[in-house]
Amino acid sequence: MDSDKITIHDIAKLLNIDSSTVSRALNNSPRVTEKTKNRIIAKANELGYQRNHLASNLRLNKTNTLGVIVPRISRHFFSSAIAGIEETAYKLGFNVIICQSLELLEREQSNINTLLANRVDGVLVSISMETENYDHFEGLKQRKIPFVFFDRHCNIPETSSVLIDDFKAGFDATEHLIIKGCQSIAHFSGPLHLEIYKNRFEGYKAALSKHNLDFNDALLFSSRLMEQDGIDNVNKMLALSFRVDGIFSANDVAAISAMQQLKREGITVPKDIAVVGFSNETISAIIEPSLTTINQPGFDIGRSATELLVSQIKNGTKHTTNEHIIIHANLIERNSSQKGKQPKD
Amino acid sequence: MDSDKITIHDIAKLLNIDSSTVSRALNNSPRVTEKTKNRIIAKANELGYQRNHLASNLRLNKTNTLGVIVPRISRHFFSSAIAGIEETAYKLGFNVIICQSLELLEREQSNINTLLANRVDGVLVSISMETENYDHFEGLKQRKIPFVFFDRHCNIPETSSVLIDDFKAGFDATEHLIIKGCQSIAHFSGPLHLEIYKNRFEGYKAALSKHNLDFNDALLFSSRLMEQDGIDNVNKMLALSFRVDGIFSANDVAAISAMQQLKREGITVPKDIAVVGFSNETISAIIEPSLTTINQPGFDIGRSATELLVSQIKNGTKHTTNEHIIIHANLIERNSSQKGKQPKD
Repeated sequence: MDSDKITIHDIAKLLNIDSSTVSRALNNSPRVTEKTKNRIIAKANELGYQRNHLASNLRLNKTNTLGVIVPRISRHFFSSAIAGIEETAYKLGFNVIICQSLELLEREQSNINTLLANRVDGVLVSISMETENYDHFEGLKQRKIPFVFFDRHCNIPETSSVLIDDFKAGFDATEHLIIKGCQSIAHFSGPLHLEIYKNRFEGYKAALSKHNLDFNDALLFSSRLMEQDGIDNVNKMLALSFRVDGIFSANDVAAISAMQQLKREGITVPKDIAVVGFSNETISAIIEPSLTTINQPGFDIGRSATELLVSQIKNGTKHTTNEHIIIHANLIERNSSQKGKQPKD
Repeated sequence: MDSDKITIHDIAKLLNIDSSTVSRALNNSPRVTEKTKNRIIAKANELGYQRNHLASNLRLNKTNTLGVIVPRISRHFFSSAIAGIEETAYKLGFNVIICQSLELLEREQSNINTLLANRVDGVLVSISMETENYDHFEGLKQRKIPFVFFDRHCNIPETSSVLIDDFKAGFDATEHLIIKGCQSIAHFSGPLHLEIYKNRFEGYKAALSKHNLDFNDALLFSSRLMEQDGIDNVNKMLALSFRVDGIFSANDVAAISAMQQLKREGITVPKDIAVVGFSNETISAIIEPSLTTINQPGFDIGRSATELLVSQIKNGTKHTTNEHIIIHANLIERNSSQKGKQPKD
């Protein structure tokens, strides 16, 4: 048989199955079982069909694949979000490929180009800490590839996002420390050009204001919130001329390294300094004292973002892309904020 | 200009840059800066070059992309390995896309098909706990897509792998417990059809034998080593008619949940039962008592596997694919195995 003239009907006939099943299998649809898919792909290879299949995929511009870009796959919040994305995507008939930006703008731009080269049908993205230039997202728009921001987003027009209310979460975390008796609360922030950190910081200030506490900018420590940043922030904080009795950290990683540094300095958490984190990393429930934190429902955020993206893919170019969904985030009260009490197991 | 006739030379001329740079940019080579790449892609889009570019990519069958398949991105070992893969791949001029199997054979088969549909140049894979059928790897071979196993591998001919010496690591972990005074050591294993768990188990038995301790199959607990498995294993272990004084768990996740369950049952680690884990998850250094474990150098394994894969890609079909690299793994001694001592901070 001349391999250039092989059609899906030839493969279907030889395997005694429907042409539509062959077509779905060659487009890698999850609706076909892997066993059948493998039989079809083996037969297609044998007949030399592969090139036509790829050309057809190219023509249709469909791969049934969603691309995901996150800063770091190792963070609990992002791996939970990816779990929600994958479960939802598979149910809706899409495969998922993942890229990390490692908090670098250039890597994020490169990720977008990789996903474009791989002809994904849509992209879910949580931006890096360096992302202040948004041209790469304009590139997606020009190519009519739908994309949805989750958690970390850019304020650019006609884009959709699934977020938590970072202002409210920052407010709740800070008010919790005030209610527990803190009067001088430091805030460990991420880069303030990012919406999420700006909003958490605004929430912190609003809670201080509501309770008639002055905002003191010596108590704002802005960093990338890595492990070392928590340590450095504590050292700077202890060098201040006045006493601090609470810390609201915009992530758990910096909160935990801060607690370890406080311990090394002979300061007791929560008695001397109460601490509240953000994200509910797995480790937060296990360390001693356990860390009070904001629970970001990663799985729900991932699911919701995927449903939104797939609906945009299915609506084609007619979609309205200006949709914003807010997912509820709650404070989980643990031992690190129980001021006046000793930590218990 | 007729978009069907646009060449890379037209784009190069209009932007006043080299054709080779345009070609590299359109093939998404990391050797071109993202800024230049974006200028080139914008111009190519404007001229309607995209289809030709993709067709050319298709013809050359090159995307400068490596695919990675791991069971779970959230495990420290796998995220470290991915960090090593990404750093090495970018240096060598490749982008990276990641898929998770979530320990499911069907998902792993689907991942392979997704990566094939996306025309990756090579694949790095650590197999799922369910993988007893290897046909999907034969599919990669038939298509002449090089692939390298890392950590969890299959014993199939003419494939390459980068591993640790799991037998030696299992031996070292068990001998360490014996030296610390344990006489009745349970082993929490993963599925024994997987080479890594079989080898860790063989190492455990060899250490018992060297020290004249009998192997008792009532002390072998085989599971998927999830959090709940550690709890279930402890409950089964405590129901035995004889006393256990040590546990060697083939991962840290089950070791840690086991320690928490022992605590709930009023049993002190390490005084009553000493525990050694495997993988050196981040949390292992932080919990109390801290967990003695085998440090699997994920970053080095990822780097080595990537170098091996890229050399195979560059050698084309002439490569010999039967190469095996062993990376050294060492025991990290912490408090959970200090039998007779109280845990310290």
